[in-house]
Amino acid sequence: MPEFPSDSVGLVTPQTAHFDDPLALACGRTLPAYDLVYETYGTLNAERTNAILICHALSGHHHAAGFHSTDERKPGWWDAHIGPGKSIDTDRFFVVSVNNLGGCHGSTGPTSENPETGRQWGPDFPIMTVGDWVHSQARLADRLGIERFAAVIGGSLGGMQVLQWTLSYPERIAHAGVIAATPKLSAQNIAFNEVARQAIRSDPDFHDGWYADHGTAPRRGLKLARMVGHITYLSEDAMGSKFGRDLRTTDLNFGFDVEFQVESYLRYQGDTFSTSFDANTYLLMTKALDYFDPAAPHDGDLARALAPAACPFLVVSFTTDWRFPPPRSKELVNALVRADKSVSYVNIDSSHGHDAFLMPEPRYQAVFAAFMNRVAGDLGLEGQS
Amino acid sequence: MPEFPSDSVGLVTPQTAHFDDPLALACGRTLPAYDLVYETYGTLNAERTNAILICHALSGHHHAAGFHSTDERKPGWWDAHIGPGKSIDTDRFFVVSVNNLGGCHGSTGPTSENPETGRQWGPDFPIMTVGDWVHSQARLADRLGIERFAAVIGGSLGGMQVLQWTLSYPERIAHAGVIAATPKLSAQNIAFNEVARQAIRSDPDFHDGWYADHGTAPRRGLKLARMVGHITYLSEDAMGSKFGRDLRTTDLNFGFDVEFQVESYLRYQGDTFSTSFDANTYLLMTKALDYFDPAAPHDGDLARALAPAACPFLVVSFTTDWRFPPPRSKELVNALVRADKSVSYVNIDSSHGHDAFLMPEPRYQAVFAAFMNRVAGDLGLEGQS
Repeated sequence: MPEFPSDSVGLVTPQTAHFDDPLALACGRTLPAYDLVYETYGTLNAERTNAILICHALSGHHHAAGFHSTDERKPGWWDAHIGPGKSIDTDRFFVVSVNNLGGCHGSTGPTSENPETGRQWGPDFPIMTVGDWVHSQARLADRLGIERFAAVIGGSLGGMQVLQWTLSYPERIAHAGVIAATPKLSAQNIAFNEVARQAIRSDPDFHDGWYADHGTAPRRGLKLARMVGHITYLSEDAMGSKFGRDLRTTDLNFGFDVEFQVESYLRYQGDTFSTSFDANTYLLMTKALDYFDPAAPHDGDLARALAPAACPFLVVSFTTDWRFPPPRSKELVNALVRADKSVSYVNIDSSHGHDAFLMPEPRYQAVFAAFMNRVAGDLGLEGQS
Repeated sequence: MPEFPSDSVGLVTPQTAHFDDPLALACGRTLPAYDLVYETYGTLNAERTNAILICHALSGHHHAAGFHSTDERKPGWWDAHIGPGKSIDTDRFFVVSVNNLGGCHGSTGPTSENPETGRQWGPDFPIMTVGDWVHSQARLADRLGIERFAAVIGGSLGGMQVLQWTLSYPERIAHAGVIAATPKLSAQNIAFNEVARQAIRSDPDFHDGWYADHGTAPRRGLKLARMVGHITYLSEDAMGSKFGRDLRTTDLNFGFDVEFQVESYLRYQGDTFSTSFDANTYLLMTKALDYFDPAAPHDGDLARALAPAACPFLVVSFTTDWRFPPPRSKELVNALVRADKSVSYVNIDSSHGHDAFLMPEPRYQAVFAAFMNRVAGDLGLEGQS
């Protein structure tokens, strides 16, 4: 009797790679040594040409597919797309998924020990950029003997890492999958991030980031940050059809207990997140989003910024995504066209807003599968399918 | 030398009306006695037919036009539309603007003394509904000897009060101006209100609403609530063109001080508001928004709910308003048409988002002025212009 679904990668075990060579960061500081925690699914072929790198979003991590135990209720965050016979077919690809530096799921970050002080890095952990992450991911590739990824793929903040890969290491990426992303944040995106940061930093339990020393955590602030985030992840339509104005009780209570379903949902999401995620990590991740702007050093000319890119792109957006809406993807597509790059663009009809990139929308899966078939074909991997 | 612009109503003095007859509220409780603070501009004619009632929005108040002193830097919140020769022409209309019950600008609210206890009402102040406000406004009209308003006009939450007037007192309103409003909130609207409430209520200085007894106020929470609110008042475009990603300093600081203009703007708006507005009032106002749903007692059939309405409507929306976007106004317009009411609808091209209803957009002013001319014409007030 199988313990897991037949199209699941099944039981997976995270691995840790330790790096002792210092990593110079965009902020000017250097990380003397660090760990990267990652998972792999499938088998690296003898030619080492079938590796796919998965980049995660704001609150993501390395656990993209399969299960950590038979008790785990939910599989990894991109399990809908990674597995035997799925879009990212682990029968032919070797998939690598890494927790980014600054994270709170095993890779070196604010909750790790600072070797210089012997206590947690906390707020002293350097602010990371998308570029820093890509450099650290390239070192992990070195460690795994992967000279060139068949594809680097990611959604949202993950898509920004993919874009950065095509600019920082054009010779090491054969295909780029940029999903539900944007070449830079809008003022409104930054504004929402700023509310999240203010919520965390103004929580009296934040203690300037040294909350661990005080045996506490800014849970109220992190809860609020997550509630605001959730509103931006769902489309207005999705919220409407999910909750409408349904009351939890038949009558209004004329008080401040939960009355509408959407209140209950948001409070629950916020509470859960606030006990499982590190606040300093959340702050760092929002800054990495705000800072991403590859066109900035080129006077805002994105096409010029894209000059180094050498691989074909798939760009995907979702109709009801109002966090990074289709026009932001089109901006990238137009710049790629102006820069004379190879790009396919698909705007997927979905009611799920930004979160659609995580979901098994049939047309999205078909587009994704076709792209991965092209990746396999370009690299002569067909026979392995 | 004139102290004020020639099209200003000039120096105005708020007045207070005290009511000793108890007001029964939707929540089932009764307000034993209360004050309403209000301002008037222009002169009530002998026939008492030229009175206009202005209803305010979430954080509004009675000071809609003119100046409280020669030192006041900014005039009332709707000064762009109220004054001699302006859309709401005080040379022919008598304008009444009232601070709603539960407010914090002079009318009885959470910061007033509870006669039963001798201390501030605080969180014990009853939760008000749009219907309660309309009843209290009708009593003020009685006091002023106004049997029927030539028009009741308001934007946002103010527009909901106008709509309620047409249902609660159809014989007392000759024209309705419903601007940038909605017949009920969406799940997303409620979600944003819930984040604001959680921000205030989870602030350790909230003390279950008894912050005044502790000599403090939940300023961090109120600041966050206002920051979230501001994002929803501005269009993405307006934010983009106002701030773009402009940095305050030339270089990124890789820290959490202000780096982007939009951060500075939001922090400033939040700080200012948090020292000038009462948190319990803010909570009440968001609840009044959430609860407004005149179609609810009619199985959600808005056209059926609108049956009592007897006056012509002007409905105005703004193209970039994403808080109460044009489709929400169209919902109201369609229901009015189905209910066989007289309605004019205009969707104004504006880049200012929800805040556009406060601004002197030329086409908006022209539409507004034409509507007020119709009001004057219908009531035979032409000669006074």
